Amino acid sequence: MANMLHNASISRIPLGNQCPNIVDSVSRCCAFPSISSDLPVIRSLQKGKHVELRKTIVLAKSNKFDDTEEVDVSLSPRVNAVKPSKTVAISDHATALLQAGVPVIRLAAGEPDFDTPPVIAEAGMNAIREGYTRYTPNAGTLELRQAICHKLKEENGITYTPDQVVVSNGAKQSVIQAVLAVCSPGDEVIIPAPFYVSYPEMARLADATPVILPTNISENFLLDPKLLESNLTERSRLLILCSPSNPTGSVYPKTLLEEIAQIVAKHPRLLVLCDEIYEHIIYAPATHTSFASLPGMWDRTLTVNGFSKTFAMTGWRLGYVAGPKHFITACGKIQSQFTSGASSISQKAAVAALGLGYAGGEVVSSMVKAFRERRDFLIRSFGEMEGVKISEPQGAFYLFIDFSSYYGREAEGFGTIENSDSLCRYLLDKGLVAVVPGSAFGDDSCIRISYAASLPTLEAALERIKKALFPLTSA
Amino acid sequence: MANMLHNASISRIPLGNQCPNIVDSVSRCCAFPSISSDLPVIRSLQKGKHVELRKTIVLAKSNKFDDTEEVDVSLSPRVNAVKPSKTVAISDHATALLQAGVPVIRLAAGEPDFDTPPVIAEAGMNAIREGYTRYTPNAGTLELRQAICHKLKEENGITYTPDQVVVSNGAKQSVIQAVLAVCSPGDEVIIPAPFYVSYPEMARLADATPVILPTNISENFLLDPKLLESNLTERSRLLILCSPSNPTGSVYPKTLLEEIAQIVAKHPRLLVLCDEIYEHIIYAPATHTSFASLPGMWDRTLTVNGFSKTFAMTGWRLGYVAGPKHFITACGKIQSQFTSGASSISQKAAVAALGLGYAGGEVVSSMVKAFRERRDFLIRSFGEMEGVKISEPQGAFYLFIDFSSYYGREAEGFGTIENSDSLCRYLLDKGLVAVVPGSAFGDDSCIRISYAASLPTLEAALERIKKALFPLTSA
Repeated sequence: MANMLHNASISRIPLGNQCPNIVDSVSRCCAFPSISSDLPVIRSLQKGKHVELRKTIVLAKSNKFDDTEEVDVSLSPRVNAVKPSKTVAISDHATALLQAGVPVIRLAAGEPDFDTPPVIAEAGMNAIREGYTRYTPNAGTLELRQAICHKLKEENGITYTPDQVVVSNGAKQSVIQAVLAVCSPGDEVIIPAPFYVSYPEMARLADATPVILPTNISENFLLDPKLLESNLTERSRLLILCSPSNPTGSVYPKTLLEEIAQIVAKHPRLLVLCDEIYEHIIYAPATHTSFASLPGMWDRTLTVNGFSKTFAMTGWRLGYVAGPKHFITACGKIQSQFTSGASSISQKAAVAALGLGYAGGEVVSSMVKAFRERRDFLIRSFGEMEGVKISEPQGAFYLFIDFSSYYGREAEGFGTIENSDSLCRYLLDKGLVAVVPGSAFGDDSCIRISYAASLPTLEAALERIKKALFPLTSA
Repeated sequence: MANMLHNASISRIPLGNQCPNIVDSVSRCCAFPSISSDLPVIRSLQKGKHVELRKTIVLAKSNKFDDTEEVDVSLSPRVNAVKPSKTVAISDHATALLQAGVPVIRLAAGEPDFDTPPVIAEAGMNAIREGYTRYTPNAGTLELRQAICHKLKEENGITYTPDQVVVSNGAKQSVIQAVLAVCSPGDEVIIPAPFYVSYPEMARLADATPVILPTNISENFLLDPKLLESNLTERSRLLILCSPSNPTGSVYPKTLLEEIAQIVAKHPRLLVLCDEIYEHIIYAPATHTSFASLPGMWDRTLTVNGFSKTFAMTGWRLGYVAGPKHFITACGKIQSQFTSGASSISQKAAVAALGLGYAGGEVVSSMVKAFRERRDFLIRSFGEMEGVKISEPQGAFYLFIDFSSYYGREAEGFGTIENSDSLCRYLLDKGLVAVVPGSAFGDDSCIRISYAASLPTLEAALERIKKALFPLTSA
């Protein structure tokens, strides 16, 4: 437990008076851009007094500059503050190694290993064949938004109209647009850890402060409602829940969500964003509850979902957000300046995906069956290893395993395994298995293993991991 | 000329001392978020003194709140400051009218009326058929980025390596990510008007100040280098050029770009973003020059291009930015947290598009020939109308026509035509033709007519416009 939050790249800050003060000054000052930016500077064509004044200043300055002077390569503070996605970086690196001929087994990406089901693929090909290759409305085609509303009603018990849905290039875009829409500078975004890598960075991109609430492997990485309650302030604007969870596979039981809802209800400023992208990849008896379906929560919940995971459609780039119209319109406004609508082809394919029936029907349940077999295999196998702690995931396709007992050990020709980063580097270098360090998810004691790979591949990967770790055990 | 910048939604601000002051305070304060956001607040699991302190505050506060209290529906200042895209809004509205059975002629969207060429469509279908439906690297597939580098070398005389290219969900995303990457709060983004609708909003989303430099229809809407020079300050971070231009169709001649480059060279802080999305839709003898190919400009230029316009691929959502690695890496970092990579299917199709040969070969030149015929027809026809001013466009597929002589006139059953907004509303209501008001582009005297429609459609639209305007002429 001591290792729970030794995240190398995130400093632990004791709660004290300095935090609210920093936030205060940020909040006060950053109201400015919105005020001033309503008023763009429009320079006159006529050479009036003011223009002449400005011109004089520029001419005086230009004497200082040498024509051969270096270009200013500084970046915006926002981009300096934001870390690149570690999962994306590791996946890209593993792919590059593989393309270079290194036989790496990739268990790093959050991507089903299945092909997109034929019915969906066929719908995509038909869209192209029929010339359905033009811009769609910014929020997505009416046909798709209607299908999404039907799905949310039938499967999730939440009622939305099409103008309460915005379709984006992937659920990631849906999440960040919602964060940008509702969070003002200085607001706090409450994020239980382990978290999906992008949440804290999204909060930063919105000039908000990510507030990380740790959870415990012995409690299946589920948020303690008391911890939530004790950390809510008047600056708390958004709680982000992800169930089934990436990276832990934990599923929030309905009773726990109800406890959380009771706390949320006491805070009028607090909204909840529920990332339900892994909704259908869930193992009975666990069941999925949409937070927005709980009494009183519809008004303050933004429900994010997408097609990538359930329907093996990662490359199609399609997700959506649903919620009260006021917030969703704001999300659409940001999207209209950022990307406009998503791929017309992918939207046609998505309509076919929702046409597969309740929870994706047989097509999806056969994929979930395969994921379950793999999970069971890995739980059995890692369970036999010494020095690892596991919480059996109830959904998604990840194992988030505590390997911290290996930290501090020496590996020949490598050096000390210091943390999850170096353990993952070691497993890639020596074991040729790509997995993601827990530090990326705010929990350095663990590593994330994706089991979106065939059983034989997982067996091979397990052998490699065991072989790589064995010298450490006996050292 | 008096009407040039009577943009209803943008206030004209005289240049004076107050502007730099506002900018100053914004810049000073907004450096904070990046500093504080490096340090997320991580709440302890242990109930230490600080947590107790915080808890007490919350409990005290929760007494104030009634459980039934209303939800806080405020939006972030950034979303309040940003206007939704007017072109997107009008296109969506016209599409909705058409779906409702109103026989509107849509000349509002920036979208070729051609189908995606068969070779490209086939490549997209093959990608799906072959299961090429997984995540690509964040920056785009190596295959596509190599093809883009080859194109930029052959067609534009600019040398890039694949790590100097990021592929996005459309060129719009490429532009905003570049703006977010290089602009700090308080920086000025120099935008010649008429401008593409999203540029000022993108600057606002980056907490930067859009500085609008007007141009003159009698000078083909081309930026006066002297006006540029007299308006550059040490806060000027980015000049956005769009050639061929949306909305005017103007093409920047090489000599003018060279003059601009000489001014830019004197300002080490000033970068240039060139939106070259209409590059190949150009009418001889006009030719396209890439700003990055001019001496000394490579280091400070971000070249944006895409597939939507040249290859009639709007629905595929694919654009890219190329530039010095330092800046491009920053763009990729933002993208990794915002959307990840673009559609795998669209990327395969784009490789096929670039495989069509120099400037898209016969496939593209036949589309350009059709655009030229339409332009010539409209120039002739509108040229015969009284009270309109036209600058003959050399590229893209828009006419940006000055209709301001109609302002102030009464239309029966409608009221006064006050500005470009009401003229366009009138043309939609009475003429059933959807066009975009110049106010959206920072020039209220004009309206934008897209001629990405067949000649018979354009003939019908012209008749409707003439018929709608006739009562105004004779009034």
